[in-house]
Amino acid sequence: MTRLLIASRNRKKLTELHRVLDGAGITGLQLLTLDDVPSFTEAPETGATFEENAIAKARDAFAASGIAALADDSGIAVAALNGMPGVLSARWSGGYGDSDKDVANYSLVLAQMGDVPDERRDAAFVSVCALVTGPGADEVTVVRGEWPGVIARKPLGDGGFGYDPVFIPEGDTRSAAQLSAAEKDAVSHRGRALAKLVPALRELARG
Amino acid sequence: MTRLLIASRNRKKLTELHRVLDGAGITGLQLLTLDDVPSFTEAPETGATFEENAIAKARDAFAASGIAALADDSGIAVAALNGMPGVLSARWSGGYGDSDKDVANYSLVLAQMGDVPDERRDAAFVSVCALVTGPGADEVTVVRGEWPGVIARKPLGDGGFGYDPVFIPEGDTRSAAQLSAAEKDAVSHRGRALAKLVPALRELARG
Repeated sequence: MTRLLIASRNRKKLTELHRVLDGAGITGLQLLTLDDVPSFTEAPETGATFEENAIAKARDAFAASGIAALADDSGIAVAALNGMPGVLSARWSGGYGDSDKDVANYSLVLAQMGDVPDERRDAAFVSVCALVTGPGADEVTVVRGEWPGVIARKPLGDGGFGYDPVFIPEGDTRSAAQLSAAEKDAVSHRGRALAKLVPALRELARG
Repeated sequence: MTRLLIASRNRKKLTELHRVLDGAGITGLQLLTLDDVPSFTEAPETGATFEENAIAKARDAFAASGIAALADDSGIAVAALNGMPGVLSARWSGGYGDSDKDVANYSLVLAQMGDVPDERRDAAFVSVCALVTGPGADEVTVVRGEWPGVIARKPLGDGGFGYDPVFIPEGDTRSAAQLSAAEKDAVSHRGRALAKLVPALRELARG
């Protein structure tokens, strides 16, 4: 059975990938996470793009384990902030403000956009996934999923995490934090990216 | 004598423009500021670019006074932040953090760039000046001055204002807050923009 290492310690990502593989009818992949590679230390994410970070993480995990590795980097790109917070989404507030990091991050975006009119509040959640199956330059598959929407005027809803409470998906009036997990899976940036990765995962499973 | 309204209440801008006019040998302009137009209320700056904001400010001042008007919009563009804080430079921290707004703003940029390596710390101070001499589309002159440099790792110096303590101009090892006023005038973004405006100011002075 081919092994695939998810370069993360987040169990939710394991569950999510299992769901994608099941949905695509892909069997024959044994999923591991970084918890199965205790010696591995994740490097800080210093890339200028989601792609750079995802590829670096997958390459590092492959190099440390010799196992095909899947990594992702995600964030929110706000048009009025020239596509930022972007790769800095998780540390946008830099430790300032609220003691809850998610609240501090999205509160800062709301404050920065206080004077930004409705017609310029476009944003998109972005997820880039990189699959590294070997050391060669041609053994990397990179896919990008985007979930378009707008930045709300105030936080809405208790679900989700990160910027979900201030993100209103295109075609909806609820925030991402007000969607059910199933609704979100069907349309989210991560779901879209993983869907694009299915052909490569199917090939990997075939060995 | 031709009158020129500086669309600002900042007396330093008046002094600076006097110095530029003197340096260029331009006489025949009587400078006013918004303090001379007490009825005028400045609109919030909601443009997506420095150009939009500077033109809107100059047009508003011209419309309210009937006097040729000069406005500027300035800020710092950080490459690793995709050119932001940009038009949001003055309110980047959104009221979060330190009670001194300048300190809050530059501390946030330092924190956001904590993991950004030296080779990606490029930034530029940008100043856009708009001169509006009439209601027509062809009666607007817009110039842009840039002052390139890098973002420091920590604040340096007590002089200047805004982001000066964290900005190291190209070719220097001191921050903008460690330069004398004269040194700064000679190379700064505002100085460079105003220098480009000299021909238009000369024409205006000729009547």
